Amino acid sequence: MIMTGNPFADRDIISTLDFTKEEIEYLLDVAINMEDIAKNGSTLLSNKILGSIFLEPSTRTRLSFDAAMKHLGGQVIGFADWDKSSIKKGETLYDTFKVVESFADILVIRSEWEGTAKYAAEILDIPVINAGSGAQEHPTQSFLDLMTIKQERGSLDGITIGICGDLTYGRTVHSLLPLLINYDVNLKLISPPELKVRLEDKTILESRNVQFEEAESLDEVLPELDVLYMTRMQRERFRSEEEFLTVKNYYVLTRSLLTKGKIDLLVMHPLPRINEIEPDVDALPQAVYFKQPKYGLLLRIALLGLIFDVF
Amino acid sequence: MIMTGNPFADRDIISTLDFTKEEIEYLLDVAINMEDIAKNGSTLLSNKILGSIFLEPSTRTRLSFDAAMKHLGGQVIGFADWDKSSIKKGETLYDTFKVVESFADILVIRSEWEGTAKYAAEILDIPVINAGSGAQEHPTQSFLDLMTIKQERGSLDGITIGICGDLTYGRTVHSLLPLLINYDVNLKLISPPELKVRLEDKTILESRNVQFEEAESLDEVLPELDVLYMTRMQRERFRSEEEFLTVKNYYVLTRSLLTKGKIDLLVMHPLPRINEIEPDVDALPQAVYFKQPKYGLLLRIALLGLIFDVF
Amino acid sequence: MIMTGNPFADRDIISTLDFTKEEIEYLLDVAINMEDIAKNGSTLLSNKILGSIFLEPSTRTRLSFDAAMKHLGGQVIGFADWDKSSIKKGETLYDTFKVVESFADILVIRSEWEGTAKYAAEILDIPVINAGSGAQEHPTQSFLDLMTIKQERGSLDGITIGICGDLTYGRTVHSLLPLLINYDVNLKLISPPELKVRLEDKTILESRNVQFEEAESLDEVLPELDVLYMTRMQRERFRSEEEFLTVKNYYVLTRSLLTKGKIDLLVMHPLPRINEIEPDVDALPQAVYFKQPKYGLLLRIALLGLIFDVF
Repeated sequence: MIMTGNPFADRDIISTLDFTKEEIEYLLDVAINMEDIAKNGSTLLSNKILGSIFLEPSTRTRLSFDAAMKHLGGQVIGFADWDKSSIKKGETLYDTFKVVESFADILVIRSEWEGTAKYAAEILDIPVINAGSGAQEHPTQSFLDLMTIKQERGSLDGITIGICGDLTYGRTVHSLLPLLINYDVNLKLISPPELKVRLEDKTILESRNVQFEEAESLDEVLPELDVLYMTRMQRERFRSEEEFLTVKNYYVLTRSLLTKGKIDLLVMHPLPRINEIEPDVDALPQAVYFKQPKYGLLLRIALLGLIFDVF
Repeated sequence: MIMTGNPFADRDIISTLDFTKEEIEYLLDVAINMEDIAKNGSTLLSNKILGSIFLEPSTRTRLSFDAAMKHLGGQVIGFADWDKSSIKKGETLYDTFKVVESFADILVIRSEWEGTAKYAAEILDIPVINAGSGAQEHPTQSFLDLMTIKQERGSLDGITIGICGDLTYGRTVHSLLPLLINYDVNLKLISPPELKVRLEDKTILESRNVQFEEAESLDEVLPELDVLYMTRMQRERFRSEEEFLTVKNYYVLTRSLLTKGKIDLLVMHPLPRINEIEPDVDALPQAVYFKQPKYGLLLRIALLGLIFDVF
Repeated sequence: MIMTGNPFADRDIISTLDFTKEEIEYLLDVAINMEDIAKNGSTLLSNKILGSIFLEPSTRTRLSFDAAMKHLGGQVIGFADWDKSSIKKGETLYDTFKVVESFADILVIRSEWEGTAKYAAEILDIPVINAGSGAQEHPTQSFLDLMTIKQERGSLDGITIGICGDLTYGRTVHSLLPLLINYDVNLKLISPPELKVRLEDKTILESRNVQFEEAESLDEVLPELDVLYMTRMQRERFRSEEEFLTVKNYYVLTRSLLTKGKIDLLVMHPLPRINEIEPDVDALPQAVYFKQPKYGLLLRIALLGLIFDVF
């Protein structure tokens, strides 16, 4: 199928489930050409304002959208200090969103509640980008993860990808799987028994005949992997500190463990990491997790430009 | 009287009491022509910096000034997270203001203390805009309220306006009345007995022979109204939670209640609302409270441009 | 020695100890020519992004860098509300810095921990500016202090400078002394016995044969001074509130005390002040502490432009 026209124009970005393989590839193809804008800037969005509302802690996603918009010549308004907003006076999300729409041309929203971005998209006329909603979705993270694999390996087909850590609560995992089903990949889903991949995710994988296997031991699976996607135990999603502590140190990737892996293994992580990858791994050529934010910037520049249809 | 020259050039905006009818009309006439700048941006203030200091929670006012300045091509610095400023180290407002003056060409200030903006204006050489000071004043909100009525109805003369809710502590009410006295309006001041309009406000109305009547029942007054201006009970101004709870649900505007009103009634609210207008009212043509922030953006673009005298 | 080329190009600004007298004078000479950019703006850094990370309260330093970058046409991203960043999720400073590097061309960092800026400079490829690290260093403050003396007096040589207050924990003092050793100054180091200048600072002074004398009484020393540099007792560095309270009111500069000083004495303060200079001193011609932030803006414009080598 050949794309005719830009499929992202004026579109909401809520869930990776909403995009076809052709659309995903289209986005990635544009993103890789954003190097010049990331370096030299542009005035493509010089009359546009991005409303940025972060109701959960964030460093990388918020700053990445901020930088992307500014590289495109646009402006950013919003807040990350939600306890200083009118939400503090009892204002509903509905009213807050309606008001931000009065001032902004696009809304980027992160929230601890699942469905917040979808809700915003339903009530607003401006495009909405989900920058992370609870344990549910984080589509721009998954797009950049896919871009990283593609750029660093050349292709996604025929490779074995291990996804390791908190597969129940991690929104980056839940968001990445619907992208991977479009490729001929072999998945190893590595987790403690109590944090296995969700049933709904398994159903998605099975519906597309994706080869996957669940495993508990990272050591055993590691030698087979072309990509290892480590994730953080999501302390903020656990019901108690005790529950969290039982799994906190379940997986810790060390230099010594990596000697068992393929020489061209890619080690990825959506970040932030806590202790699941030891710092001395950072210097190894396998570690690409600090390249991911760089791809993320290109990806978000591409996405904003496409939504406003300025390329 | 014909205005010669721009009466807002280099002027402080502290209280609505400071402006004549001619000046108010001048501002509103400019504001309605700001649509193009709100849509396409401009570079009129490209070498100017707005200092934005918010010492109380805000969403709409802060973002509105931020967007207005950016549409004019200007820059914004400042803080809304006051506990991360040097005020936390014990710095006085005086010193904070003097320092911001070193970096900014205009100051927008919100504070829980009455008189803060006036104080800033007295000690600084740059223009100061009051973005809300305690229970006292919020002049740009009142200008946009007036603009909304004028644009949505065509004229202010000969109409009946109901102002309902917390008439004692609500700064939007206290700030709006000195604008309304310039028009041939009939006012219904609807409040619980313990939250009646302040004596000083009554004196202002009487001094200009404005027709007004105090009432407790919204139901009884509603059929006479052309405009209903609902306000929030200002929880943060009450001395105790108990006092607040006795009045919290005093007025709740419902669809059913609105059937008793005129068909072309305008329902306004400065926002944020808590529960004083039910959500299903939003979809009715009478509800214009989400149009108010849009007028507010135009109004603030006009005001900033006029103060810097760039039109 | 004549400077050939710009010695600040692509350089980290961590400690005043890192700069020669020639380099310091070079910076000050550029800074004094930044008036036009501070007034009319420029597009010299229009494709650059400054990452601003403040992990301690700040008003003047943060806003000053923000305004300086914007006057140069650059953009600013970052956070001052560190409890809303991923540091809250347990992310290390290392990871936070690496990620910000993906989005920014230069990093400005303040932290309560000594060595933070130095650490950032070691791990990052982009230039790093120390905007205050614990009780250790605050180099841009010291540059602007030096600039203030030079501009307000014409020369530093042959003058007597009193530095008064918390000489143990005050980072502005510790940072200023390595600049003053380059000039023929006579220093009076005035402090309570428990807050004397650090041994390491004395060693620096002695190594360059700088004339200095320690004193406890401001009254006695004042008549000899050409410059009086007052500092704040650093409440946040004391181990207990009790310890702090014993010294809080040790030095309070009054109008009456100033009558004992030279007529052309300069009274300086890095700000914020608490109570160590009485407000009625502000109006005296000797008081230049509100001029310091103005020089600071020029200094930071110069520094950013030099680091990016755009002049």
